[in-house]
Amino acid sequence: MDIALLGGTGDIGEGLALRFAYHTNHDVLVGSRKAAKAEGKAEEYETELDSRGIDVTIEGGTNEDVATVADVVVLAVPPYHVTDIIEAVADELDEGDILVSPATGMDRDDHGFHYAPPPAGSVTEHAAAAVPDGVPLVGAFHNLAAARLANLDAELGIDTFVLADDEDAKDIVKHLAEGIGGLRVLDAGPIANAAEVESLTPLLINVATNNEGLHDLGLELK
Amino acid sequence: MDIALLGGTGDIGEGLALRFAYHTNHDVLVGSRKAAKAEGKAEEYETELDSRGIDVTIEGGTNEDVATVADVVVLAVPPYHVTDIIEAVADELDEGDILVSPATGMDRDDHGFHYAPPPAGSVTEHAAAAVPDGVPLVGAFHNLAAARLANLDAELGIDTFVLADDEDAKDIVKHLAEGIGGLRVLDAGPIANAAEVESLTPLLINVATNNEGLHDLGLELK
Repeated sequence: MDIALLGGTGDIGEGLALRFAYHTNHDVLVGSRKAAKAEGKAEEYETELDSRGIDVTIEGGTNEDVATVADVVVLAVPPYHVTDIIEAVADELDEGDILVSPATGMDRDDHGFHYAPPPAGSVTEHAAAAVPDGVPLVGAFHNLAAARLANLDAELGIDTFVLADDEDAKDIVKHLAEGIGGLRVLDAGPIANAAEVESLTPLLINVATNNEGLHDLGLELK
Repeated sequence: MDIALLGGTGDIGEGLALRFAYHTNHDVLVGSRKAAKAEGKAEEYETELDSRGIDVTIEGGTNEDVATVADVVVLAVPPYHVTDIIEAVADELDEGDILVSPATGMDRDDHGFHYAPPPAGSVTEHAAAAVPDGVPLVGAFHNLAAARLANLDAELGIDTFVLADDEDAKDIVKHLAEGIGGLRVLDAGPIANAAEVESLTPLLINVATNNEGLHDLGLELK
């Protein structure tokens, strides 16, 4: 399967690109607004993987270019760019393609980080409202610490969650995510349940801030 | 230390009463609107503990009666009763007493459970706004499955979170909670961070609903 990471030069894009290329046999494509930036980062990822004995080609290109090729398109961009980027690549998506939204909305004050969803109720619902007809959107990977993903020496042993209204698309993304070693993928239900998943991210940051020795936290339900 | 569980005949009250009595040497008091109901439940808890070789006295009484005696008063009531019960026992609290709020607000629709906080931002903040002057309020125990707590055969091995603006009170409740075997207690910061903790409860229920074999879920940050 071809997996495109739009905004794949950013931190969560980097983590997912490296993990998919490291743990699975899927083809990974890195997108950015500028092709040269994406190509440079793709080369960096190849070098990192090569240093671990993984000889793999990672393509880089504009977000539009990589979305054209891919079967699964991950919107690895900040929450306020999610609908823009869906609009930018809408014409490149074919029936059968799947969009994946990992973004969450947060703000910060003197006390800590707080979940700050858009009026749709969650970033995932906001994204779902913007997809072209016939292209399902799956929420996934929201609560993963980017630096921990990108460090291939770091053990995961943690959970992530999938949310979708299209059960087939949810299953495909679930299996895709399960290819990443150490990641258990749990079904959190339809997209209407996304807010509770997205609000894990500020919680994990607040706990890391307030407890010595904890950082880049994930979680395991048990 | 004397720990009163107001609404201690309900499910989370039962779980905390049994766990405190089973794992610690603190005195546990069960409160209810009717003394006879509280006394009956306290006797039930004693019988349950006795069957495990724990010979302990658990007092039962009205919420007001047990709040008078206790050093730590847990508001183990539904979210819509939190401020009423604070008002009911306000005159029984002394300086140095600590109130603990474990309640969270949820609603349910066809998709699943959703976090539904009061206008204050969270049930914990709503409770904190209602406490008498000089009595600190600590948020704790929000995300614990009542049935799992109440089943003393069930291993915990999970985390809970404390939130407070008064660091001394937070430390006391943290140590108290750490007395419960298998419970790790993490500092989630000031009460302004409570919404992200409270919204774990609907997430845990949604995941249990959507994944076979999972129920009464807790979580471990790692």
